[in-house]
Amino acid sequence: MGKEITSRSEDYAQWYIDLVKKADLAENSDVRGCMVIKPYGYSIWEKMQQALDKMFKDTGHTNAYFPLFVPKSMFEAEEKNAEGFAKECAIVTHYRLKNDPQNKGKLMVDPEAKLEEELVVRPTSEAIIWSTYKKWIQSYRDLPLLINQWANVVRWEMRTRLFLRTAEFLWQEGHTAHATAKEAVEETERMLDVYAEFAETFMAMPVIKGRKSEGERFPGAVDTYCIEAMMQDGKALQAGTSHFLGQNFADAFDVQFTSKEGKLEKVWGTSWGVSTRLMGALIMAHSDDDGLVLPPKLAPIHVVIVPIFKTAEELDRISEQANKIADALRKLSYSVKFDNRDTHKPGFKFAEYELKGVPVRIAIGPRDLENKTVEMARRDTKEKQVMSLDSVAIAIPALLDDIQANIYKKALDFRTSMITQVDSYIDFKKVLDEKGGFVSAHWDGTPETETAIKEETKATIRCIPLDAKEEAGVCVYSGKPSSKRVLFARAY
Amino acid sequence: MGKEITSRSEDYAQWYIDLVKKADLAENSDVRGCMVIKPYGYSIWEKMQQALDKMFKDTGHTNAYFPLFVPKSMFEAEEKNAEGFAKECAIVTHYRLKNDPQNKGKLMVDPEAKLEEELVVRPTSEAIIWSTYKKWIQSYRDLPLLINQWANVVRWEMRTRLFLRTAEFLWQEGHTAHATAKEAVEETERMLDVYAEFAETFMAMPVIKGRKSEGERFPGAVDTYCIEAMMQDGKALQAGTSHFLGQNFADAFDVQFTSKEGKLEKVWGTSWGVSTRLMGALIMAHSDDDGLVLPPKLAPIHVVIVPIFKTAEELDRISEQANKIADALRKLSYSVKFDNRDTHKPGFKFAEYELKGVPVRIAIGPRDLENKTVEMARRDTKEKQVMSLDSVAIAIPALLDDIQANIYKKALDFRTSMITQVDSYIDFKKVLDEKGGFVSAHWDGTPETETAIKEETKATIRCIPLDAKEEAGVCVYSGKPSSKRVLFARAY
Repeated sequence: MGKEITSRSEDYAQWYIDLVKKADLAENSDVRGCMVIKPYGYSIWEKMQQALDKMFKDTGHTNAYFPLFVPKSMFEAEEKNAEGFAKECAIVTHYRLKNDPQNKGKLMVDPEAKLEEELVVRPTSEAIIWSTYKKWIQSYRDLPLLINQWANVVRWEMRTRLFLRTAEFLWQEGHTAHATAKEAVEETERMLDVYAEFAETFMAMPVIKGRKSEGERFPGAVDTYCIEAMMQDGKALQAGTSHFLGQNFADAFDVQFTSKEGKLEKVWGTSWGVSTRLMGALIMAHSDDDGLVLPPKLAPIHVVIVPIFKTAEELDRISEQANKIADALRKLSYSVKFDNRDTHKPGFKFAEYELKGVPVRIAIGPRDLENKTVEMARRDTKEKQVMSLDSVAIAIPALLDDIQANIYKKALDFRTSMITQVDSYIDFKKVLDEKGGFVSAHWDGTPETETAIKEETKATIRCIPLDAKEEAGVCVYSGKPSSKRVLFARAY
Repeated sequence: MGKEITSRSEDYAQWYIDLVKKADLAENSDVRGCMVIKPYGYSIWEKMQQALDKMFKDTGHTNAYFPLFVPKSMFEAEEKNAEGFAKECAIVTHYRLKNDPQNKGKLMVDPEAKLEEELVVRPTSEAIIWSTYKKWIQSYRDLPLLINQWANVVRWEMRTRLFLRTAEFLWQEGHTAHATAKEAVEETERMLDVYAEFAETFMAMPVIKGRKSEGERFPGAVDTYCIEAMMQDGKALQAGTSHFLGQNFADAFDVQFTSKEGKLEKVWGTSWGVSTRLMGALIMAHSDDDGLVLPPKLAPIHVVIVPIFKTAEELDRISEQANKIADALRKLSYSVKFDNRDTHKPGFKFAEYELKGVPVRIAIGPRDLENKTVEMARRDTKEKQVMSLDSVAIAIPALLDDIQANIYKKALDFRTSMITQVDSYIDFKKVLDEKGGFVSAHWDGTPETETAIKEETKATIRCIPLDAKEEAGVCVYSGKPSSKRVLFARAY
């Protein structure tokens, strides 16, 4: 079918790109660094959005929409945030094109339509949102303010990779305002838990919850929490972040409120986000050399039915059974595709749905009709079983649950096997080079050591796990004392 | 409550702005021409999106996502389209800011980070999408291609108005590709029907389906269809458009396919869109001097329950009943709010939910508890009735249906009363000035007459109705022969 993909062992990076393109998830556009998310890829993203949106609303948040553009003077108000994003911003400087007098039929930027103040295409929306919150917040009665936005953002990336790092990407960004530091920290942690639950329950992807070191913190945050996942090639991937912003943006935009006691106080903030990067994580966490492996909870098609027939009469009889199965499953809210195309052979179809990660495939041939059976194949383990027609609609829901659980368990077992404790820098480097994965090691807590290790090994501190135990030790690099282990890894 | 809004008779334009702001739908941002859509406004937009998205999917479309930026050379490929939007484009020219050496703590555009080719922030996506379709379409088997995108777009507007005309707005844009002109025209008409059904069924807003004159056509289209609605001030509003693009974009981007017969042919296209402008239409079609009137199908809250109490003990007893009603209605998928705040008086709450257009309000006081009754008030007619507690959950669904139907009927009666046939230019101008609304008149079909009438009266041809009858007549302006009437109006 011309859809062969590079194997993971041969070239993991190429396997990923092949898979994204051949499973019709996304492709590069003619616009530098920007991707096109194709319908099949977008339908998985929609499932992610729906699940997350419900979780946000269930935790009291509402959606709103803020402008794409941020005037430069507003952008630079919170200095650390501005500094952190200044080098990767798309800047609008003009608002009109005109006919190019030198070049018939061509357009040129109209120099007379230069903006008085340049506009930054949002790389993140803290600035524009906090400048708005200033107008919305006067009293403690206006707090907490719990708002989320689904939007596109732009960060000018020089080296891009479909879903994982693109100049434009889609995301959600929550921005909340609170009366006390305690409430804001609780919100930061609550949303980290929401992300972890989403990753594990829907994406079937185990994650480690932790805090970032100062060097890896979001620009403008007091504290950055994250969930970190392990990909099959032993590299880590940051799958979501939740930031406690302290009063930094309240300071920058002068956002104050009158407390119950009548005192004027500064507001506390959080922000948190996940993006289409999760698509990359989902792909790399579970898929194999034959294509995507999708957890049923995010699969656009749960079950595909492929008829095996020679004559139109055979197809008719098979269709009758297939439609019965499909109807029964659709009533249970499963998405079923009956692929009755006569332009493609069953083998072609099998390979196509394997590539696209459809969790369950049912094949029905003439002999099955005689025996009142079907052949059922699961995508995750490739196991097949013959099953009586009557029991299909009952068996599928349980099978899909089992697939969801199995994909998670497999990823968890792998992740567990990829956390290695080391107590010396020699072992640290050896594990990184020979095994990969997370290296759990003592660190002296200084940015200098973190930077030196990063320069020498390309490994970064992924997080200081929330569940890290107090344990006296010495830093693998400096030999200075340390009170707990942190997780290092090479990362996407 | 400080929420008084200007009355419609006093100043309709100010009434609209007051309503949008005071009902918490949207506000101007500090970014020129861009609005902030506030949570309550956004929740109505989400309802619109959900309904439309389902209708698009039910008619065979899938969603995808294409880049925000369009390189200038791609943008100018379809000349008429480019010319139509060139004067209102935001242009990205640089990709980096740097520290301003003259101005500590400030940033400036880095002159060294100038783009080789400028990027246009999409005002519409035909160019970027057709340049992609070129890669996706080789054979008749790849057609039809039925794709929709939910996105933000930017059209630099000098005079903006919340929802109705903003520099950035949210919309959906369908872009389809077909093997034949016939199929593409059918798609254009199908999507016009979808828009009309959405407007009438969900927004309770009657619309007239028609074609645009050549002068009002979408730049790059062969034919533009539209739905036109009538606002309460007698001005028309274009609520959605569906374009037959012919082979214009296939020409510009060289999109060809091999037909069943093995011949290389050019692809036929359509595009169609509705935007957050619909929010403006919804507001202006139904609302009154006390605030929003929302059709139940788009109301974020269907029923609000307001307790009338003096003591905590009374509130407890009322709460028990209120929660029973709320539970029963929520089981039927209605959205119910029980406003038990003790910081605001019932009168304040009544005014607030009138302002926000909640279709049904239930009040429960101590006497109601004694009598096992509630007071039910509908927003559209302001009628109140006392009803026995037991029958509330049964009566509400029928009441909501009745409100939906009544709002539609009221708008339809008004719209019908606002179509005036005229047969002379004197009457034409008189109706426009004294009554407003649609003027049904003969037109000679020339752009010259259209332009002259527009310049003299500010009325434009809203559409040539699809159901216009063949009728011999003479143009009200030129006296030349005409075969059917068209609809003129002053418009938003």
